[in-house]
Parts: sequence; structure tokens; C-alpha cells
Amino acid sequence: MPAEPVRFGSGRLGPATVEVAVEAPVNIVYGNLPYAVMMATPSDLEDFVAGFSLTEGIVRSVDEIRGITVTPQAEGIVVTVELAPGRFRDHLARRRNLSGRTSCGLCGVETIAEMPMAEGASARRQPIPASAIDAALAAIERHQPLNQLTHAVHAAAWCDAKGAILAAREDVGRHNALDKLIGARLHAGHGTAEGFVLVTSRASFEMVEKAAIFGAGTLVSISAPTSLAIERARLLGLSLVCVARGGGCTVFAGALRQELEAETR
Amino acid sequence: MPAEPVRFGSGRLGPATVEVAVEAPVNIVYGNLPYAVMMATPSDLEDFVAGFSLTEGIVRSVDEIRGITVTPQAEGIVVTVELAPGRFRDHLARRRNLSGRTSCGLCGVETIAEMPMAEGASARRQPIPASAIDAALAAIERHQPLNQLTHAVHAAAWCDAKGAILAAREDVGRHNALDKLIGARLHAGHGTAEGFVLVTSRASFEMVEKAAIFGAGTLVSISAPTSLAIERARLLGLSLVCVARGGGCTVFAGALRQELEAETR
Repeated sequence: MPAEPVRFGSGRLGPATVEVAVEAPVNIVYGNLPYAVMMATPSDLEDFVAGFSLTEGIVRSVDEIRGITVTPQAEGIVVTVELAPGRFRDHLARRRNLSGRTSCGLCGVETIAEMPMAEGASARRQPIPASAIDAALAAIERHQPLNQLTHAVHAAAWCDAKGAILAAREDVGRHNALDKLIGARLHAGHGTAEGFVLVTSRASFEMVEKAAIFGAGTLVSISAPTSLAIERARLLGLSLVCVARGGGCTVFAGALRQELEAETR
Repeated sequence: MPAEPVRFGSGRLGPATVEVAVEAPVNIVYGNLPYAVMMATPSDLEDFVAGFSLTEGIVRSVDEIRGITVTPQAEGIVVTVELAPGRFRDHLARRRNLSGRTSCGLCGVETIAEMPMAEGASARRQPIPASAIDAALAAIERHQPLNQLTHAVHAAAWCDAKGAILAAREDVGRHNALDKLIGARLHAGHGTAEGFVLVTSRASFEMVEKAAIFGAGTLVSISAPTSLAIERARLLGLSLVCVARGGGCTVFAGALRQELEAETR
């Protein structure tokens, strides 16, 4: 979206048109039951809501989603999800016990005991070769058209075992970008057997959880991980790789780490 | 917190100790009633929870907070807030109608009509001179000790009308950093009469809302704003300034914009 700000400093005064990233309220509704309002970039919303429904634990697979309807309104966008009847009954029952949780995977959680915990589905994946990570890092910028315009959005990509980028999605929110990617892969009918997730943002606890719920074996992030992201990745058997400042990569957890440790011995 | 990842690529193999930012679950409890679990950097938690209580609308001023107790536990940190009796009754009544909202100011909101709206308290502030913004930008890095170690945390600072940094707080979450700053200023008994908020992160809708609820007249962000941040800042009369790529600043909304426009005529 073009904006016309006024510039000052460094000898460049006066208005200039810049592209800003669009952020809009997206109201996610299951059946006729509003669930959450997310601030998101209004593109790939079917993918977003499919991924969100999986990582929020509303559905266990996309087969349980019968349809997704996107309706722009004056104040925002309503996305209505029709669930398979049995799944909708489960959602209603669960809803009575839980306040609305939203995209970071934690909001609405009232006590530490309620914190979500992905199952360690990632544990048996093959380690990704370091060359594949380098290849994906070299290619990711070409898959970020919105970021090239606005310099303000995150991307999440699915890369194959050689580092080719098979799908990428962008959003002002890093959790949203990852949910969009997961939804896109689910909609295309692709599993996570070989490959890895690359995100242009930091690796926090919630990003590790979402990647593990999706079933990815490796999460590569361009920015640094937090302490809890490392702890959770180790617990879940997820390989957690972060791009190091000044070149190279840093492996904090997982099978790739063990392989590299063996190499350096 | 030190971590010992394995590095690869660029000829630097083998382990190296790096500092990672600590992220921990912080359970915010009002009276004996759990409210939300936030992932935060466990420093300045009294400031964090005071600022959070204001920007979430739980209290209208710090006078309504009678005490804050921080209790580290095995799985996380519990922060208990004692509210003034009348305010606690209001909180209980409000809680019955609202699922838990958390730090972004939107989580738990189920329909677009429930979205929060700060009042336009910022409208009558004096515009900040461009020289003050330049001075604060030049100084902020010295107020980010944790980021210098980890390269992974955001900062929010309160700057006076000449750009001197009077307080700064850091956190893995940008909303948390701003809530910590607001709490620190409230605890120190300082108002927002003259000065501005500087954040090292992007300016999204929720950052504008929090700054406006605090009563700041100007929000300066180092990264780009979103469309809704600009729209909301205009509505609230908040001056929204973002650091431009390649030097200088870009004014998207508010009194400073009007002043610069007059200058360039």
C-alpha cells in the first residue's frame, strides 16, 4: 500500500511515496462461532487459516476442514471455516474449557500448566546437509516480493533436502507467515518427509512449537534463537539452525548438531 | 544465557559459546486469578507487569496497584498483582465478559467489534524537534546491554524533548519491551508531558495503541510501520516517525508531519 510520509534529515526533505506493509484485522470464525482476531497481511488467507487451525490444535489434518470462506468487510476481513461435523463438536466442547488462544500459540493461556506441548513427531527425520541450508539462504530473497517493496514483512519457506525453495509465504507477523506456509503445504497435499522450514525471523518458543506440530525435522532461522526455543527444540528432537553473524550457521539442537559434532572429532 | 552451538560454513567449524536471550513463561495473576502467560525476558518484571496492567486496561493508573510479587517457580515465573479493592471488583466483573487478552493487545479478542481503541490523549502534545530524534537514535545502542550480548532483543526508550534517553528497557518481545518502559516510567512517577517513545522494532497497530494509552505524543520506530499503525496514529493524533533506510526519518502521521510540511512549503 503506498503511503506519502514527510522525510527529514540527511538533506532529503519533502514528501516521498513509500510502500508500507498492509496489516488488517482478520476475524477467524469456526462455523458461526468467532474464535480470534489476528492482525495479518491480507494475502493467502486460506493458507493462513488452514495452518492456524492445525497449529492451534483445532484440526489434526486439513481433511477436517470442509471449506474456507474469505469475506472482506468495512472494518476487516472475516474468514469462516467449516469443520467436519465431528471436529466441530470437539471444538465446541473444547471451547467451553479454554479461552481463545491465538497465533503465538500462547495467548489466552492463563496458567503455565496450560501451555501447549507439541509431540516429538520430528525425532526420526534425516539431518539436512549444510549445503542445502546455504542454498536456501542464497535463494530466499527472490521469494520475498512483498518484503522487497516494504522491508517490513517476514517470510517462511519450505525447502527440499537440497535447499530448493518449494513454497514461501510472507506476513507482517512471523507466526502468521509460518502458519501461511504450513497451510500452503497442507493444501498442496505435501508432507514434511524430506526438507526443512526456513524463517527470516527469530526462533522463539512458539516458532519451534509450530514447526514441530507441522512435523518438520529442521527449523532454520535467520535471526537468533531464544533460550526456550533451544530447550524446546532439544526436547522435541527438532534440529534448530540459526544463521551466524558474520557468515556460517550455528546449530543449537538436533540431529544436524550431532552429525557436525561427529565430523569435527 | 550462554549456549554452546556447533558452527558450520565459512571455514569456522566446531563449538563456540554464544549468548542467547532468555525467554521464560511469565504467569500474570491478579489477586488469586491467573490472567495470562506471556513469554518474556525475565528482567524488570515489576515494570513489565505495571505497564501491561495499564495497556491492557486492567488499571487506569499505577496508584491502583497495591503490590507486585515476583515468584520464580520450576516451570516459569509467577507475578502476582494486588489491585486496589474497587479495581479488583471491576476486574472480576469485566473478566466474566472477556476472554484473556494478552500483550499484543488483541489476543483473546474474538470479533472485530471488540478491538480495543485508545482514546486520543496524545493530540495536544508539542511536536518533537527533528534534532531530538537524531540525538536519541545516536544514543540508543548504549542503552541496549542485553542486545549487545545477544543480538536478539528489542528495546523501548523514553527520551526527553532534546533526545536524551531517560529510561530504556529490553525484552525478546517488542510489546513486552514497551510495556516494561511504560511501567518503569509509571513507577518513577514520571508523566509524558514532554518527550517521546523510541522503539527499535517495527511500528504495528498494537505499538501505536500502547504508546497512545500511555499518553505519549510521539512514537519513533527504527523499522517500518504497517498500514494500520499509520491509520491509527492519525486517528489518535500520535506523531509516528520511522527511521528511513539510507538515513533520515520519515514522518507518517501527527504534529511533526504538519510542521515539516509547513517548513517545506
